[in-house]
Amino acid sequence: MPASSLGPGPEFDRIRAIARALGDTAPRLGNDVAYLELPGSLLALSTDTSLEGVHFRREWLSLAEIGWRAAAAALSDLAAAGANCQGLLAALTMPGQEPPESFAELMRGAGGAVSAAGGTVLGGDLTGGDAISLTITVIGTAPRMIGRAGAHPGDALWVTGTLGGARAALVAFQAGREPDPDARRRFASPEPRLELGRALAGRGARAMLDLSDGLAGDATHLAAASGVAVEIRLDALPVNPAAVAEAQRLGEPASHFAARGGEDYELLAAMPPEFDGAGLPVTRIGTIGAGQGVRLLDRDRAVLLAAYQHFA
Amino acid sequence: MPASSLGPGPEFDRIRAIARALGDTAPRLGNDVAYLELPGSLLALSTDTSLEGVHFRREWLSLAEIGWRAAAAALSDLAAAGANCQGLLAALTMPGQEPPESFAELMRGAGGAVSAAGGTVLGGDLTGGDAISLTITVIGTAPRMIGRAGAHPGDALWVTGTLGGARAALVAFQAGREPDPDARRRFASPEPRLELGRALAGRGARAMLDLSDGLAGDATHLAAASGVAVEIRLDALPVNPAAVAEAQRLGEPASHFAARGGEDYELLAAMPPEFDGAGLPVTRIGTIGAGQGVRLLDRDRAVLLAAYQHFA
Repeated sequence: MPASSLGPGPEFDRIRAIARALGDTAPRLGNDVAYLELPGSLLALSTDTSLEGVHFRREWLSLAEIGWRAAAAALSDLAAAGANCQGLLAALTMPGQEPPESFAELMRGAGGAVSAAGGTVLGGDLTGGDAISLTITVIGTAPRMIGRAGAHPGDALWVTGTLGGARAALVAFQAGREPDPDARRRFASPEPRLELGRALAGRGARAMLDLSDGLAGDATHLAAASGVAVEIRLDALPVNPAAVAEAQRLGEPASHFAARGGEDYELLAAMPPEFDGAGLPVTRIGTIGAGQGVRLLDRDRAVLLAAYQHFA
Repeated sequence: MPASSLGPGPEFDRIRAIARALGDTAPRLGNDVAYLELPGSLLALSTDTSLEGVHFRREWLSLAEIGWRAAAAALSDLAAAGANCQGLLAALTMPGQEPPESFAELMRGAGGAVSAAGGTVLGGDLTGGDAISLTITVIGTAPRMIGRAGAHPGDALWVTGTLGGARAALVAFQAGREPDPDARRRFASPEPRLELGRALAGRGARAMLDLSDGLAGDATHLAAASGVAVEIRLDALPVNPAAVAEAQRLGEPASHFAARGGEDYELLAAMPPEFDGAGLPVTRIGTIGAGQGVRLLDRDRAVLLAAYQHFA
């Protein structure tokens, strides 16, 4: 996409600066997924870094969970592209004094996630460093290009599964409590929605992205990239039951708690008006109109939520 | 390749442990390049991390050079596969307080390297962290699979370009001296040998790899993976002129200095006996025989050299 249609925020300021510097050498920056047309295949690719202290803490997760979660974050981008998964490459930085079994344990997790998605571990790279950092690059093939751009006025906004579970676990971890088991699973071993992404693509998805930064923030990206206005009914959100309990604890409405939560790795899709969601675990949560920006409504009252931002 | 045919050393102990843990989920670990067969294309892929303090220091290189060098290291794996370059993905970790221009400068370097190789920057990921870490994943297409395995007794061993230049720069940097300009260029902005790799593949290369760990170490990998014995004539090595001067300073024979130097990103190829190198900047430096291991000869005397090892 042209850098001018990127959303707001410091991460996008950096992407805009990079796009300006690279010009024709980087014609389509700013999407979660990159496409490459080859004879016979349309490749979908995504790369994602998980860094100790930023994306996870070792006292919260096992090495296998850290590996699974890092792979799932990248695989989720393939899901949002309506792509399948062929495999992944893993670039792993870990302290040199860790035994070989630690490397194996972490990669067992990443391998489990890619195997569940139908792919294999194709290769990788090992580096000795102070903190654990795992950069996963996934490769799949897609029937056509789907990105953040493409939503039309008149489309409806849909979301898969439930929201807020990962945040419920994070809030509990940060408070030193053991999270609810389902919330913990949503945080530690999220299941990327590849099959559902392909089903939505097959039913005409116009724009799709995965909820890594939270619904409120990610909807802003979709609105900016598509050049449309997005209206979301918070009272329609499918809130994860564990999120309801954590929201109560914080005195925050459950739907607000869920809309601000990141890393659920559910899909947000702009679907044509005739789509009815039949047979799929999806919920209609809003509409696409002419204009720009995102309006959040809670029983017809406008609501303002602070979104999660990298580098904030 | 089966993990049993990996070379010695702590990095390979880790790869072996990972391969055991993953089983069928990772059928071909241990190569610098990963292959993926798709309808119509054979993909060649490689991922490489460049980490501040391990692979470079900011006081030695500009941000653009750090970016170029990181991309070149990954592109060099495509060269050794006889592949072309379609593009790269860049996962960049950098302190959040760096201005957007620093991100742009680093990616300008990576973009220059991929553009020189015929590809584009397809996408990436940005993370805030304490040290600069850049993981580059490159994608190309190859006419057939070439790896470390495949060398036959009777083949000859060839190397491209000259060796020791990057090490000459590193030794000067470490001693607080400004390196010789050509040595500095070899270290800061190496030119991956993609065209030459394709030429060698076209003339029947049986096994090929790029010299990232140094000739002595990388030849060991080729011997182990191919199940052959390699004999290298150090007196035949094409030594970079700047390496001659630095070797003299250290009181080390120039060819030994060059054989121990890493990160030249030249190619090492086992070529069929009829190959004569005509018209290509390549030098015949040894032979492949039955047996195992690497024998280094200097005017018919056996020589033992310590090789560079990651995690050493």
